Amino acid sequence: MDWNGVFATRMSRMKASEIRELLKLLDQPEIISFAGGIPDPALFPAEAFRAAYDEALTADPGTALQYSVSEGYRPLREWIAGEMARIGVPCAAENILITSGSQQALDYLGKLMLSPGDTALVGWPTYLGALGAFNAYEPVYARLDPAGNRPAEDIRAEAEAHGGAVKFAYLSVDFANPTGQTTDRAARERLIDLAETLDIAIIEDAAYQSLRYDGEAIPPILALEIARRGDIEACRTLYCGSFSKTLAPGLRVGWICGARDVIGRLVLMKQAADLHSSTINQMVVDRVARTVFAPHVERLRATYKARRDHMLAALAREMPEGVSWTRPEGGMFVWVTLPAQMDGADLLAASLKTEKVAFVPGRAFYADGSNGNAIRLSFSSTDEAKIDEGIARLGRAIARG
Amino acid sequence: MDWNGVFATRMSRMKASEIRELLKLLDQPEIISFAGGIPDPALFPAEAFRAAYDEALTADPGTALQYSVSEGYRPLREWIAGEMARIGVPCAAENILITSGSQQALDYLGKLMLSPGDTALVGWPTYLGALGAFNAYEPVYARLDPAGNRPAEDIRAEAEAHGGAVKFAYLSVDFANPTGQTTDRAARERLIDLAETLDIAIIEDAAYQSLRYDGEAIPPILALEIARRGDIEACRTLYCGSFSKTLAPGLRVGWICGARDVIGRLVLMKQAADLHSSTINQMVVDRVARTVFAPHVERLRATYKARRDHMLAALAREMPEGVSWTRPEGGMFVWVTLPAQMDGADLLAASLKTEKVAFVPGRAFYADGSNGNAIRLSFSSTDEAKIDEGIARLGRAIARG
Repeated sequence: MDWNGVFATRMSRMKASEIRELLKLLDQPEIISFAGGIPDPALFPAEAFRAAYDEALTADPGTALQYSVSEGYRPLREWIAGEMARIGVPCAAENILITSGSQQALDYLGKLMLSPGDTALVGWPTYLGALGAFNAYEPVYARLDPAGNRPAEDIRAEAEAHGGAVKFAYLSVDFANPTGQTTDRAARERLIDLAETLDIAIIEDAAYQSLRYDGEAIPPILALEIARRGDIEACRTLYCGSFSKTLAPGLRVGWICGARDVIGRLVLMKQAADLHSSTINQMVVDRVARTVFAPHVERLRATYKARRDHMLAALAREMPEGVSWTRPEGGMFVWVTLPAQMDGADLLAASLKTEKVAFVPGRAFYADGSNGNAIRLSFSSTDEAKIDEGIARLGRAIARG
Repeated sequence: MDWNGVFATRMSRMKASEIRELLKLLDQPEIISFAGGIPDPALFPAEAFRAAYDEALTADPGTALQYSVSEGYRPLREWIAGEMARIGVPCAAENILITSGSQQALDYLGKLMLSPGDTALVGWPTYLGALGAFNAYEPVYARLDPAGNRPAEDIRAEAEAHGGAVKFAYLSVDFANPTGQTTDRAARERLIDLAETLDIAIIEDAAYQSLRYDGEAIPPILALEIARRGDIEACRTLYCGSFSKTLAPGLRVGWICGARDVIGRLVLMKQAADLHSSTINQMVVDRVARTVFAPHVERLRATYKARRDHMLAALAREMPEGVSWTRPEGGMFVWVTLPAQMDGADLLAASLKTEKVAFVPGRAFYADGSNGNAIRLSFSSTDEAKIDEGIARLGRAIARG
C-alpha cells in the first residue's frame, strides 16, 4: 500500500526532531550531554509520589482508576487556581483545563486557532516543541519581536500575503527555551498592546516560571492583562503551566488557564481527543503539590542555581575568543553564540566524535531553519564536575573550529 | 475579545456530546443509568495496581517519573505484541505505538489521514467518540455497509462530489458500540476487498474485543489481512486496542498496531502532540497485565455475561409490543429499536422525569443525526437487581409513549 495516498497534507510538515535523534546518543556513558532540557531524576520527590499513589489506591480506587471529566480533577484545578492567584492571576477552577503536560496545551491551542495558511507569531528562536505542535495545523510563521516593537501593520500585511489571518503570538517570557532570556515588564506590556491592535490571542508558555534563581519576579503577561481589564474573562492571554519541571514529567500533568469561554471550547476538544488526562495521576499530583510543592521547588532552585553558576563560570574560563552567551536568571538553558561562520550542527558532529560532548544546534529553534550560528546548553541534569569537564571539552571543540 | 475571530474553522464542528451532558445526571442517586459505557469500578484489580505503583516507585523512581520515548515503554509494547500474536496478528514491538487510551488512537488516525473535505467511511450508527475525534479534521462522512456490500464506485463518486478522497473505513467488529453487534468473517473479508479496491486504510477499533461471552471468536480484520498478505508490513489495517475495558480506564493506556512505516509517522505525531503517554502508568499497566490479565478478564467476562443475560431476560419480560433489540455476544451494549415514530431523545426526557431511568438516545451515533428511533443501553456497571428495576421502568416509559 502507498500510504502517501491516504496521508493528510499536514504530514509533510511532521518531521523527526533533532533533539529526539540526539537523545538516542545519551545511552553512551562516555558522552557528557547538555542536550536535553530534562529535570534531574535524582531530585524527584519520589517518596511523596509513592505515598500519594498508595493513598489514592487505598482511599478510593474506584475513582482513581475510573474515567473522569475532561476538564480535570476538581481539587487539582482549585489548587492551581490558588497558585495562579499567588502570581497575580485571580481565577477560579473553571478557568483551568488540565492537559497531559504543557506540550498538549500547545497542541490544543494550535488546534483551537490555526487553519491552514493562518499565521502564528513566534520568536526567532523559539521552543522547537511549539513549532512541532503547531506544524500539525499547517500555519505560516511570522517573526515576533520579543521587545514588542515590530509594527502591527507590518505583521498583518505579511499574514495577508500568505492568505490567512494572524491568530496568536506564542512566547515564553521567563528563562525561555532555548535562550534562557526573560522578557522585561515593558516588553510584556507592549506585547499586550500588539495583541490588542491585531485582535489576536497570546499563548504564554510558563513551563520554567517557578525556576527563578536571581532577580525580581515579573508578573506573567496574563497577570498584567488582568490588571488592565479587571477580569480574566476579558483577557486574550492563554497561560500554559506544567508540573514537569517542578514535580515530575512522567505523570504528564499540565494546564491551561484562561477565560471560561475558551476553556469550555478546549474541554470539548480534549473530550474528543483523549477523553481526559489520567485520573489517578491528577489525584496524585494534587496530593503531592499540597504536601511538598513550595519546599520542593525551593530545593530545586538551590541545586539548579548552583549548576547554572558553575556553567557560567566554566564558560567564562573555557570559551575561546568570539563566543558569547546568555546569563539566564532561571530555567535550564544557556544560549551560546558561536564565532561567525561556525555552524552548530557541524560543531555537534565534530564534538560527538572528538570530545564526546552533546548539545542542541541552534537551527532547530528557528521556524525557517535559519541561524546555524548558535547552540543550546542545558545545565539542569549534569553535576558540577561534569559541567566543568563538558564545558572544557566544548571549548576545545570550538577552538579547533 | 471576540474569540470567534481567532478560532480555526474546525471549531464549528466541535460540539458538546449528549453522553457528556447525560453523565452529569448520574450524581442523582435515584436515577438508574444505562447510559455510560463504563466498566464497573468494583471490578478493578485495585490491589494489583497498588502493588505495581509501589514497585515501580521503589525499584526505579528516576525512570518512572521521568520523560520517556514517544513510542512507549518497550516491555509493554512487547507484551502487547505477544497478545496480538495470540489473536492472529504476529508482530513486533516496532508495530506498536502506546496511546493515551484508544480515544487518542482515533484522534491520531484522523489527524494522520484527514484533510478538510476528505471522506471517512463510518457505520450508520457508529461510535460517537470516533465522530468526535474525526470531526476536528473536518471530514465528510459516507456510509459504510457493515456487510461490506456497498459498491466501491458508489463510495468513490460520493467522496469526489465533496471534493476530497476516501481515506479510511472505521469500524468496530466485535460487540460494537453502540449496537453490540459483531461483523461476521465473510463481511470482514469483503471489507478488506473494499479497502483494497478503494486503496484506503481500515481503522479497526477493538476496544471490546476481549469481552466475548458466547460464540466463537472471529479473527480481527488485521489477522485476516495478514493471512492474505503474509506480513503486517504489507497491511492497510490499523488496529486500535485499549486497556480501559479490561484493566482500568483511569490510567489512559491504549495502543495502535500496524505497519512500521505508519507507526513511525504516528510516533512523530505523538511527540509533537504530547511527547509521550505517562511513563509510570505504562510501567504499571505492564506489571499488572503480566500479573493478572488473563484471570482478571475471565472474571470480568463472567460478571458482565450474567448482567447481559439479566438485561436480555428483563427486556423480554418488560418491553411492550413493537420494541426490538440486539443480542450481543459480548461487550457492554444492547441497542433497542423503539416503536415507529417514537424518538429516543424525547423518551429520555420523559424517562428522566417520570421514571428516573437514563440511557443514550440513538441519534448521537449517526454522522448525520438521523434515526432518532433507537436507544443504547449499557449493562456493564449496573447490578442485577437494578437492571430488573431499570428495565421495568423503561418498559413503562415506552408504553406511556
